[in-house]
Amino acid sequence: MTRILIRGGIVVSATGSQPLDVLIDGETIAAVLAPGTSILGTDPATVADQVIDATGKYVIPGGVDAHTHMQMPFGGTEASDTFETGTRAAAFGGTTTIVDFAVQTPGVRVQDAIAAWHDKADGQCAIDYGFHQIIGDVNDESLEGMAELVAEGVTSFKLFMAYPGVFYSDDGKILRAMQTSAELGALLMMHAENGIAIDVLVAQAIQRGETAPYFHGVTRPWQMEEEATHRAIMLAQVTGAPLYVVHVSAKQALEQIAHARGRGQNVFGETCPQYLYLSLEEQLGAPGFEGAKWVCSTPLRARAEGHQDELWRYIRTGDVTSVATDHCPFCMKDQKELGVGDFSKIPNGIGGVEHRMDLMFQGVADGRISLERWVDVCCTTPARMFGMYPRKGVISPGADADVVIYDPNGHTSIGLGKTHHMNMDYSAYEGFEIDGHVDTVLSRGRVIVDDNRYLGSAGHGRFVRRELSQNLI
Amino acid sequence: MTRILIRGGIVVSATGSQPLDVLIDGETIAAVLAPGTSILGTDPATVADQVIDATGKYVIPGGVDAHTHMQMPFGGTEASDTFETGTRAAAFGGTTTIVDFAVQTPGVRVQDAIAAWHDKADGQCAIDYGFHQIIGDVNDESLEGMAELVAEGVTSFKLFMAYPGVFYSDDGKILRAMQTSAELGALLMMHAENGIAIDVLVAQAIQRGETAPYFHGVTRPWQMEEEATHRAIMLAQVTGAPLYVVHVSAKQALEQIAHARGRGQNVFGETCPQYLYLSLEEQLGAPGFEGAKWVCSTPLRARAEGHQDELWRYIRTGDVTSVATDHCPFCMKDQKELGVGDFSKIPNGIGGVEHRMDLMFQGVADGRISLERWVDVCCTTPARMFGMYPRKGVISPGADADVVIYDPNGHTSIGLGKTHHMNMDYSAYEGFEIDGHVDTVLSRGRVIVDDNRYLGSAGHGRFVRRELSQNLI
Amino acid sequence: MTRILIRGGIVVSATGSQPLDVLIDGETIAAVLAPGTSILGTDPATVADQVIDATGKYVIPGGVDAHTHMQMPFGGTEASDTFETGTRAAAFGGTTTIVDFAVQTPGVRVQDAIAAWHDKADGQCAIDYGFHQIIGDVNDESLEGMAELVAEGVTSFKLFMAYPGVFYSDDGKILRAMQTSAELGALLMMHAENGIAIDVLVAQAIQRGETAPYFHGVTRPWQMEEEATHRAIMLAQVTGAPLYVVHVSAKQALEQIAHARGRGQNVFGETCPQYLYLSLEEQLGAPGFEGAKWVCSTPLRARAEGHQDELWRYIRTGDVTSVATDHCPFCMKDQKELGVGDFSKIPNGIGGVEHRMDLMFQGVADGRISLERWVDVCCTTPARMFGMYPRKGVISPGADADVVIYDPNGHTSIGLGKTHHMNMDYSAYEGFEIDGHVDTVLSRGRVIVDDNRYLGSAGHGRFVRRELSQNLI
Amino acid sequence: MTRILIRGGIVVSATGSQPLDVLIDGETIAAVLAPGTSILGTDPATVADQVIDATGKYVIPGGVDAHTHMQMPFGGTEASDTFETGTRAAAFGGTTTIVDFAVQTPGVRVQDAIAAWHDKADGQCAIDYGFHQIIGDVNDESLEGMAELVAEGVTSFKLFMAYPGVFYSDDGKILRAMQTSAELGALLMMHAENGIAIDVLVAQAIQRGETAPYFHGVTRPWQMEEEATHRAIMLAQVTGAPLYVVHVSAKQALEQIAHARGRGQNVFGETCPQYLYLSLEEQLGAPGFEGAKWVCSTPLRARAEGHQDELWRYIRTGDVTSVATDHCPFCMKDQKELGVGDFSKIPNGIGGVEHRMDLMFQGVADGRISLERWVDVCCTTPARMFGMYPRKGVISPGADADVVIYDPNGHTSIGLGKTHHMNMDYSAYEGFEIDGHVDTVLSRGRVIVDDNRYLGSAGHGRFVRRELSQNLI
Repeated sequence: MTRILIRGGIVVSATGSQPLDVLIDGETIAAVLAPGTSILGTDPATVADQVIDATGKYVIPGGVDAHTHMQMPFGGTEASDTFETGTRAAAFGGTTTIVDFAVQTPGVRVQDAIAAWHDKADGQCAIDYGFHQIIGDVNDESLEGMAELVAEGVTSFKLFMAYPGVFYSDDGKILRAMQTSAELGALLMMHAENGIAIDVLVAQAIQRGETAPYFHGVTRPWQMEEEATHRAIMLAQVTGAPLYVVHVSAKQALEQIAHARGRGQNVFGETCPQYLYLSLEEQLGAPGFEGAKWVCSTPLRARAEGHQDELWRYIRTGDVTSVATDHCPFCMKDQKELGVGDFSKIPNGIGGVEHRMDLMFQGVADGRISLERWVDVCCTTPARMFGMYPRKGVISPGADADVVIYDPNGHTSIGLGKTHHMNMDYSAYEGFEIDGHVDTVLSRGRVIVDDNRYLGSAGHGRFVRRELSQNLI
Repeated sequence: MTRILIRGGIVVSATGSQPLDVLIDGETIAAVLAPGTSILGTDPATVADQVIDATGKYVIPGGVDAHTHMQMPFGGTEASDTFETGTRAAAFGGTTTIVDFAVQTPGVRVQDAIAAWHDKADGQCAIDYGFHQIIGDVNDESLEGMAELVAEGVTSFKLFMAYPGVFYSDDGKILRAMQTSAELGALLMMHAENGIAIDVLVAQAIQRGETAPYFHGVTRPWQMEEEATHRAIMLAQVTGAPLYVVHVSAKQALEQIAHARGRGQNVFGETCPQYLYLSLEEQLGAPGFEGAKWVCSTPLRARAEGHQDELWRYIRTGDVTSVATDHCPFCMKDQKELGVGDFSKIPNGIGGVEHRMDLMFQGVADGRISLERWVDVCCTTPARMFGMYPRKGVISPGADADVVIYDPNGHTSIGLGKTHHMNMDYSAYEGFEIDGHVDTVLSRGRVIVDDNRYLGSAGHGRFVRRELSQNLI
Repeated sequence: MTRILIRGGIVVSATGSQPLDVLIDGETIAAVLAPGTSILGTDPATVADQVIDATGKYVIPGGVDAHTHMQMPFGGTEASDTFETGTRAAAFGGTTTIVDFAVQTPGVRVQDAIAAWHDKADGQCAIDYGFHQIIGDVNDESLEGMAELVAEGVTSFKLFMAYPGVFYSDDGKILRAMQTSAELGALLMMHAENGIAIDVLVAQAIQRGETAPYFHGVTRPWQMEEEATHRAIMLAQVTGAPLYVVHVSAKQALEQIAHARGRGQNVFGETCPQYLYLSLEEQLGAPGFEGAKWVCSTPLRARAEGHQDELWRYIRTGDVTSVATDHCPFCMKDQKELGVGDFSKIPNGIGGVEHRMDLMFQGVADGRISLERWVDVCCTTPARMFGMYPRKGVISPGADADVVIYDPNGHTSIGLGKTHHMNMDYSAYEGFEIDGHVDTVLSRGRVIVDDNRYLGSAGHGRFVRRELSQNLI
Repeated sequence: MTRILIRGGIVVSATGSQPLDVLIDGETIAAVLAPGTSILGTDPATVADQVIDATGKYVIPGGVDAHTHMQMPFGGTEASDTFETGTRAAAFGGTTTIVDFAVQTPGVRVQDAIAAWHDKADGQCAIDYGFHQIIGDVNDESLEGMAELVAEGVTSFKLFMAYPGVFYSDDGKILRAMQTSAELGALLMMHAENGIAIDVLVAQAIQRGETAPYFHGVTRPWQMEEEATHRAIMLAQVTGAPLYVVHVSAKQALEQIAHARGRGQNVFGETCPQYLYLSLEEQLGAPGFEGAKWVCSTPLRARAEGHQDELWRYIRTGDVTSVATDHCPFCMKDQKELGVGDFSKIPNGIGGVEHRMDLMFQGVADGRISLERWVDVCCTTPARMFGMYPRKGVISPGADADVVIYDPNGHTSIGLGKTHHMNMDYSAYEGFEIDGHVDTVLSRGRVIVDDNRYLGSAGHGRFVRRELSQNLI
């Protein structure tokens, strides 16, 4: 077992920052030490196999990205990152745990669905991973299967109010799945958009010849997200299920969530970097077919309506529980191109698993959020939300030694040919410049990224059996 | 320097709970260790001078009570606890830091006022203490004095919208003090009640012969607290001052605070155990003059109006930033008795510095709040709010070794002749039974309470120079 | 042409009360006169064929009940009042206009549906009547039919979010119908309950053996009404359609409506007397099968939750636009009895067309609403809302001479064998005592009820071609 | 007694519009007639002394301007319109009733104050007038005087939260006056601005050399209006007094009012044309000393903050109860000029009594409000609010024959040398063009303005003894 001492850095937690040394013993953190002390009469460095000098840098828990879709079949194609490529890219960006979505489709047992996803990921991952289970077919059997999955560490389930004919569940099915969730104490995750109404708007737009990517955004107005969010909250209230609304992009949807949280209901909101930085006008509205790069659902929102600023505010005030990526990459070639001439055929998704920690740190650099809130929404609370704390999400003895050394004086240029390691032929953040840098990444005590070099290996990452959420009110 | 190892306990932080050992070296925490590990080849116990077995118990940061009034002249008498008796009682109850209020009165320089309070406390305290400064006379000189106090570690200032002729500042003075606060980055604390209107109601009640203690509550209706709270928020918004509203008892006042916080304004709310457990009907309405025991301002609120349950909810949702005691004890004999026949002459105040940690733990035992939230509102966030983190409020290397070992299987009976050590001839919580017990209390590495015995000494406690608030949004 | 002078009464309008004489010439009001004046040198009484002395009484516009279901096929049976019996009962109660619902079912053209309803009503009615059109099958053809109906004076269309398989429209259909409504400027009326989720709750209750009428209420919790109301509001906002939510019974649904109205959206709420007076605990929870009498949807709400008082408040504040009856009578024998042993088979509906004006006047007598608001929500605003003003809903020259003389010193006992004239074998308001009395009712200049005697005739009532709503913001 | 028939016009009321003939007999309306009917066998025109053809025009109740300050001593000078000049200007603009403010100053009995104002107005006015009473000195005697004034038809009382040392009442005085108001059922009117805080901001601005008129607006930020409005609402709630907040200019203050109204509290908001059309940037920010023309309190608000649009919305939704002018004219020469070099010395006030009906009709022409709402907020509801209905505010038999014939196809150019008749050397609305015209104005049956000619006389206008408010919820 290797011993590593990280010395001289500032450890940042969700509640504060402090100069601390961190001693790792094998896969876990063994001790957190006042800096410079020779504890027990011995300089800890003398017994460490490796000493990492973190002077002037932040030492933070490895990032937890609770929303990814590696190699997911969707939109007539498959997300372009495998578990191997996607988790390696995540590692480069300082993320050491992902929670990916296993998909159950009609006619398939949820137990078989999760098994299939285990097969895909097993032996491939650079970092640890867990699974949520998408219930694509709510019925007696799949509801019964939920208990079994919880016992196996898959403690959160996702439904869709959008995508009729694909993932969509009607309100009766949602109600039933929420009842089961409430009984199990498991988290119910929701894609909250009124897909039934949206599909009418989409068909009408196509019929009018409004086929460019821009209309993907126009046909999914904020009201349809706000509405579905509110509906999910009410169904959750009737059933008692804890509810986690994924990829919130409309400020009005977050207002609904904040309102429910204020009442004391177990309702949580996730947003993603794309909704904080990108917009309907600038990206989706790019000339020609260019906007296809940013076709995802919920869609990018109009900057003129002020969503981006409001989302940052909701992160500050704590009504955004976690920031994830909804990493769902598709290449322009052969994939996004399926929707040339018909935006509704563009595979929905943006890849970003590699850039989340950087993009959110830029929020710190820009004075939008505090250092502590950065760690909180990117690492600590996602770990708690999804039952992985204190194994993940915190620098503390006993925790997995998932640690990132982040240099606030470093610099990161995002783009193809730059930091980009995802299997995509474009970058959604091409040209973004970040006032900080992921220097070193440890996963369970092993340095897997250092100085922009990859030192990890496929299969190092292990499945994380998750407990029930530790973040309920 | 003494080394103490606390072994076998569950360390509770604001974000989670974990089995951890804590090694103290002299006055500070030296290391936090995975339990049972022989770090560096040595059993830490072998080098410790003392090993405390915390098996089955919670190990938490010492309590931070940010609102006390030791030996304060008020209402024609003086609060009955000295810094010596009051801090010893606090220690018994697991509180290891208080922040007391120095009082400036008209004609006195604030520098002289704080000096006088230093004199009172110096050499007397069982535990560490800081000071807020009450500005009783807002003028050019006192405003200039604020900067000097901040430099000396007194970084928060309190004004009163109540008590005309005593502490009251009008809105123009409040505005000026807030402007200065905003410039300094210092926290502005507010007693938010419309004292001008209340004094009319009080005079009218007395004139009608409504002289019993119960009418103290009736003449301070929730609207007068809600109103002043809202007014303070608006003045703070105009000036940019961070605002901390003390002893909030009305749910409507907390609603105003929650609303401002939701907008992203730096507004914070404090409540106290008396408002969570006691009521207008039951306590203030006790027969005869008995209700005088619970005369304090803001007053206890009507249980029928649901304030108590709503206050617990606001603790859960995070809109209550900290729970303090507003410890301001007066004996019935010779003190509270000043108001026989005229409630307006009853000295305002309740003593409770000893019972806060227990009373709030009862909220955990009753399922009202989580363990983490208990530590958060009683220890961690008050320390951050008032610029003492990570020295206070957290179990972390480098922090002061202020530690409480709390037994969730223990039991505490509150009352005179029981746990009571405050200098009061009654207990505001007589007969309360708590499903937990403060077993051991360490202040800066020294065991000052153990097994209900006091092992500390007057003068052990030192003044804490505080930084600016670390809890701003 | 007959001339009638109503003399000596107090004319009540939506904005005030005044002693005024009303001169009717044939079917319409010819003049409103200052009392006692001999206008033009002639005592108006001398040229009147009939003088009605209204001294000490209120003279008000005839009631407009904008929500009735005469002889509607529903729940495996048919509403027990024909247009003949139902409109006669309405006349007895001071209602001189109803707007009934024509029903389109799948496969039927809306033009044919409305024609069928014309056939049912033609020659049968005691009072004037209009039609709303229920669109039970939203498709290209029915949407095109809407324009035709508007041209024929049927300017409002109703959809259902409840009753899947019967009247239910999904959100896509609702969206399309709203788009058409918005284009036409026609009002979209909504039965707002989440029927998809409710039907799951109902099936579960039946399966658990919870078959009594009480469970009809339990399985339609307020959240399902609030949710659907909010959803309808959002869909209306996206499309620009004016929205009128029928039979609101949950205070939370009205809060959503009030919120939308506050934003300036054209959203309107209707409630019914049953929701103001009756409750889940008292009526639906009556012993045995008795509760079946009050099975209607939305259901009666729990008094303990305070809906009734809040609904009265919303009437006072103007957020309830109109009070209608949702008159849909079924006899206990052979009709309600269909649901013995299974509440879900009880035909949904309560009869009350006869008692609305009395029950709402009781609100005046009880001090809950003003005289003006009584006339406003029962007569004037319904007439404006549904495009019949000033022909209906106001005492003004040129208006139809639909007039009620109401005695505030009279008395009305409601119940079988008392005032009841509806074709029902029970009264939903059995035993209610009203501090007022409908003395005389005129419909288009003809006295049709006087001193509890019926002087009208089937076929007197005519179809009212309605204009677009005159009550949009 | 003269008989006038107004024939062929469209009578507009608060609830609808209708072709109606109006027969006036002496000072009051005798009959409202269906057009073209020969009632009682006689053509009404034959017995009329005068027939006014209103074909193609609106016939509306004379305007009621509930907020004027004729020849009021203020700011070291006196408002430049006398009752004679001011009411004549009002008549030109279609206003036939004003309610002016009598001022009580310290040391003066309210009975003497009102008598003094009676003296000023008696024999001077072109139109009818009532009085509100300003209580500048709340004490036992003035509170007792209030009952006497109510008996004499002065049923509303105004207090100021601004202007310390002039009109200001502290919260204790406000509370007492509200208690008396509540007992009497009289309306409490409030100038809601936090004058204590504002005066500090003003002094600081002057000290910084920010002396231009623009800083009048800057030193009265919306928060100070919102705050005072909320405070007044809470004090009103404690006392039960009905509250009418005058000249609301901040959208946030109206939000507070709307919120209170939604709760069912008797709270009412008034706004003025200047707040709907003019702004901080454009008018107050005019070059040099020009902005002084628009110095009034509350101040004009920033257009960039969206107040103007929101105020129009609140008129639409009914949360603005009435639109008045706060007519308080000062000439630039010798009056406004007092504040050259020090904005705080500029007399506060804008003259506009002549243009209200036109400016608000422009809102109809622009599609911002309906015809009915125009009449409602300018005529009917002010009359009801201040206890003058149905004598004023409605076209109805028995009512005073105060009638305006308004031509929607006419045109009005506002400005000096144009329509301006007020005693001011500038027009606050210079250059405004209105798509409508006041053709003819009748006051109590006498034509006082016709075709831009003045046919009235000083002393025609009489004092209106008002009843208690008829507009309480």
